[in-house]
Amino acid sequence: MELERYRILSRMARGLEKAELVFKNANVFFSHTGEFVPCDVAVADGKILGTGTYEGHKEIDLSGRYLCPGFIDSHLHLESTLVTPPELISQAVRWGTTTFIVDPHEAANVSGTDGIDYILEQTETVPANVYVMMPSCVPSTNIDDNGASLTAGKMKNYLENPRILGLGEVMDASSVVEGSVSMHEKLALFHGKVRDGHAPFLSPGDLNAYRMAGITTDHECVDYAYAMEECRRGIQVLIREGSAARNLEAIVKGIVENGTDTEGFCFCTDDKHIEEIQREGHINCNIKKAVKLGLPVEKALKMATIQAARCYGLSHLGAIAPGCQADLVVLSDLESLEILEVYHKGVKIQRDRETEKIPCAPKLKNTVHILNFTKDRLKLSCTSKYAHVIEMTPGQITTLDKREEVPCIEKNGEKEFEPNRLYQKIAVIERHKYTGKMCQGIVKGFGIRGGAIASSVSHDSHNIIVVGDNDEDMYLAVKELVRTQGGYTIAEGGRIFETLPLPVMGLISDAGYEKVHAVLSRMLKKAHEMGIGEGFDPFISLSFLALPVIPEIRITPRGIYLAKEDRMLKSPFDE
Amino acid sequence: MELERYRILSRMARGLEKAELVFKNANVFFSHTGEFVPCDVAVADGKILGTGTYEGHKEIDLSGRYLCPGFIDSHLHLESTLVTPPELISQAVRWGTTTFIVDPHEAANVSGTDGIDYILEQTETVPANVYVMMPSCVPSTNIDDNGASLTAGKMKNYLENPRILGLGEVMDASSVVEGSVSMHEKLALFHGKVRDGHAPFLSPGDLNAYRMAGITTDHECVDYAYAMEECRRGIQVLIREGSAARNLEAIVKGIVENGTDTEGFCFCTDDKHIEEIQREGHINCNIKKAVKLGLPVEKALKMATIQAARCYGLSHLGAIAPGCQADLVVLSDLESLEILEVYHKGVKIQRDRETEKIPCAPKLKNTVHILNFTKDRLKLSCTSKYAHVIEMTPGQITTLDKREEVPCIEKNGEKEFEPNRLYQKIAVIERHKYTGKMCQGIVKGFGIRGGAIASSVSHDSHNIIVVGDNDEDMYLAVKELVRTQGGYTIAEGGRIFETLPLPVMGLISDAGYEKVHAVLSRMLKKAHEMGIGEGFDPFISLSFLALPVIPEIRITPRGIYLAKEDRMLKSPFDE
Repeated sequence: MELERYRILSRMARGLEKAELVFKNANVFFSHTGEFVPCDVAVADGKILGTGTYEGHKEIDLSGRYLCPGFIDSHLHLESTLVTPPELISQAVRWGTTTFIVDPHEAANVSGTDGIDYILEQTETVPANVYVMMPSCVPSTNIDDNGASLTAGKMKNYLENPRILGLGEVMDASSVVEGSVSMHEKLALFHGKVRDGHAPFLSPGDLNAYRMAGITTDHECVDYAYAMEECRRGIQVLIREGSAARNLEAIVKGIVENGTDTEGFCFCTDDKHIEEIQREGHINCNIKKAVKLGLPVEKALKMATIQAARCYGLSHLGAIAPGCQADLVVLSDLESLEILEVYHKGVKIQRDRETEKIPCAPKLKNTVHILNFTKDRLKLSCTSKYAHVIEMTPGQITTLDKREEVPCIEKNGEKEFEPNRLYQKIAVIERHKYTGKMCQGIVKGFGIRGGAIASSVSHDSHNIIVVGDNDEDMYLAVKELVRTQGGYTIAEGGRIFETLPLPVMGLISDAGYEKVHAVLSRMLKKAHEMGIGEGFDPFISLSFLALPVIPEIRITPRGIYLAKEDRMLKSPFDE
Repeated sequence: MELERYRILSRMARGLEKAELVFKNANVFFSHTGEFVPCDVAVADGKILGTGTYEGHKEIDLSGRYLCPGFIDSHLHLESTLVTPPELISQAVRWGTTTFIVDPHEAANVSGTDGIDYILEQTETVPANVYVMMPSCVPSTNIDDNGASLTAGKMKNYLENPRILGLGEVMDASSVVEGSVSMHEKLALFHGKVRDGHAPFLSPGDLNAYRMAGITTDHECVDYAYAMEECRRGIQVLIREGSAARNLEAIVKGIVENGTDTEGFCFCTDDKHIEEIQREGHINCNIKKAVKLGLPVEKALKMATIQAARCYGLSHLGAIAPGCQADLVVLSDLESLEILEVYHKGVKIQRDRETEKIPCAPKLKNTVHILNFTKDRLKLSCTSKYAHVIEMTPGQITTLDKREEVPCIEKNGEKEFEPNRLYQKIAVIERHKYTGKMCQGIVKGFGIRGGAIASSVSHDSHNIIVVGDNDEDMYLAVKELVRTQGGYTIAEGGRIFETLPLPVMGLISDAGYEKVHAVLSRMLKKAHEMGIGEGFDPFISLSFLALPVIPEIRITPRGIYLAKEDRMLKSPFDE
């Protein structure tokens, strides 16, 4: 702050002059002490001047209301929900989340540093604070074919950026504890900054070695006992409650039952879809659920504010304290915790405010680069009696590796796999670097009939993944995604039914949430008509089938991957 | 950590190889969760490798014992206790304090950056972690005549020193809130680092403005209500329990009675004399007293460890967590909290270890520079009937400004003040820069008869201060301190009774604690024989009589200072 300006603000803080804006008679949540105290809050220049008794040029009476610091989502991915970052944020901020600590892992896997720059640019002027953790595992594994490698060398340019807080979720725990050079280069680069973890199910000794490498957070914790193992070691547990992964109940129940010290916990969403945010809220949901489970509201609010701010070194956030940013949430009461108003830097968030459209670099809309893809290459020769089949597990992203006799027919003197109601064909086609790599496999339990579904969203490398019961429609679907440079598509009976283009890196639509929602609804309806089970989202399910780190069997452009055995097959018919 | 070394330590942490040192079967205090959990602690290279079940090349069985992180004194002055920094620390570390956050305010007032360098050098190799806060108010006020001015420009060279954590106690609150250029230059220089406060009794508005300037700690808080005012504003309260100022009971009682969240509190000693440390302990005393007042031991231990570490950004301290420094305290039990053993970087503190003697720069032993001082200049002419008298307040450092008729006699045709049993003469003589400035005054309640007492320790500028009932002895005493280049001395009947030389900056003896203690005991005995009341330390009392910020009346080389009126008199006989 300029000294001259400080002098003016100091006079306001001291009550010698009227403040710009005063919230009168609020029950103010002091996050440092975890108390509500009735008083006024003075604001100017988007900052808190002080608490006490104040007069302002503008006064807002909050008698009977509760005023809290804005909430912090301590870990999330912005690009997982099909809309642009400003759209997602404009929804979430209405629910009181004013700070987002994002890991642009998907964007980086497609477009490397351009993807990170995209996230930084798109969030520069949103009415919220967006900080970025540098994705640590791009590519995710050494068997991935993704769009870019993010080495420590490439990360260096970001060190001075004040919005880059540290290193993103370090998923490759074994590289950490084994002391891999490239991993430790990245860890060393972010020495003195936050290094986020991703460490479910490590043994106590491995967790010690992982923590010793400097990793101090984890958002993958799913139960109370493991959460305590992490907390004791000084690993902050970011309790996750998103669309898919919901860990809050298990952890908070344990906290409540054991009267646990809650300093070691924060809240995050990791991945939460925009429609759910719109319907039920964002970090305010974590707070509400925690309170419902018996956590005192003061402790839940500390997790959502000061504890996250402290964990990420954001000393100007998370508190209604002099000098802190005036990010504020007005709550109706402490039972319903209804969000009445949200302020960012002292400015009220307008619910009907149109979301900013920030153009993106043209190269980010040109990321689907496929070589030598022909319908013929979708053929799958039956080279033995049994095949490794990817069996879907309902409601889970894990799969089962089954060796089964699958339907084969003779075509032009060759035995070929022939999909039926039970077994469908699946293929993954490398789409970043014209490598021409692709692989076909067999999936059981997907259920599609009379067509194909394809997507350019497939974790973490985001190659084209397609599933269907006939090569013609599968071929059409893949070609359609080349045309639209990414998206979701359904082909049926030799023609494209409908496509949701996701032209930004093949991950994000810039057509606006309403449009996305309308198209997606029609496509999901159609997918279910084509045999996909109700309560089963084919696009989300597809998006995980190429993720090699999840057990038991996956499909990648290099072949069928057996995760438990760490073994790659060229064909599902290989032993 | 070098990667190669990490790999080896990682194998130990994972239990794949024996650790260097294992503490077996301890009740380990996990400061992040505030719990004791029985387990082993593995150590190598002075670091914690992990907690769990371990085997070690060396194993120490701690069955039935309690193992805690080393304690942190979050604010203290090393130079206030007459012995060298290594001596003080070697006493305190035996009681479990392994980290000291020191403010070399006195050293800087005498010798500027040389004084700060002295503290840094003397503590470089002690068996403890010593961090330094840059003294912010040198000189303390603009009416002080001290040895050096510490401007932001001079502080710049220290910014990169990893042992300099920030700006020391900012006593001049009014310069802060009024926006003084030189004060804000210093505050700005330490932006992003810790800026310690010193803010007793600010109004709520001033406290807001003070906090808005970036100040985030205070150790001057004396009651619970004010502590909460500070905590709510994000000012960490360092609960002080030293030799003179004892604030713990008032604050902790409030915490216990109100069930207050204790995250916003740490412990400090500020000033604690070596004999008291030797007798009763150091930060362990704060812990014990707090527990006795009803604070759960876990909360007290958090204040003494992780909370202080967090407050000062010392992420490698304050916890028994992988990667943290192996500073450890073994406690007998949770009732007596007896300190059995202390480890610094995994090495046991030997109680009989001889304190290191680190030579100091010769210029630091040559700091008493007096000009034109003659016995004649001690004469005090009675220019009016009434004089401003400095009345001592028993047990307090405050004084009362009394206008009284004092004894005067005629000598050589002039009326002169003549000390008696009630009124004695006092003088302060500038001793840093040969300015020749000096002033005489009248003190009531000091009680010395038949001699004089002089000291080169007088806060904050540390000029020579002398009190006596005759000019001859006063003159002798001052000359003696010039000869010894600082110290305490007593003159009686025309000769020096004894002197405790404090040759290092006129503040510190390098003769060793035993010697200091022996000399000081003889001198105190003598002082009491000469009329000083029992339970009254003439040297400590003298040391505060030149401190202009304390009400009501002080003596400085420039004159008699009336603190309430902010007015300087050339002579006590002025109106």
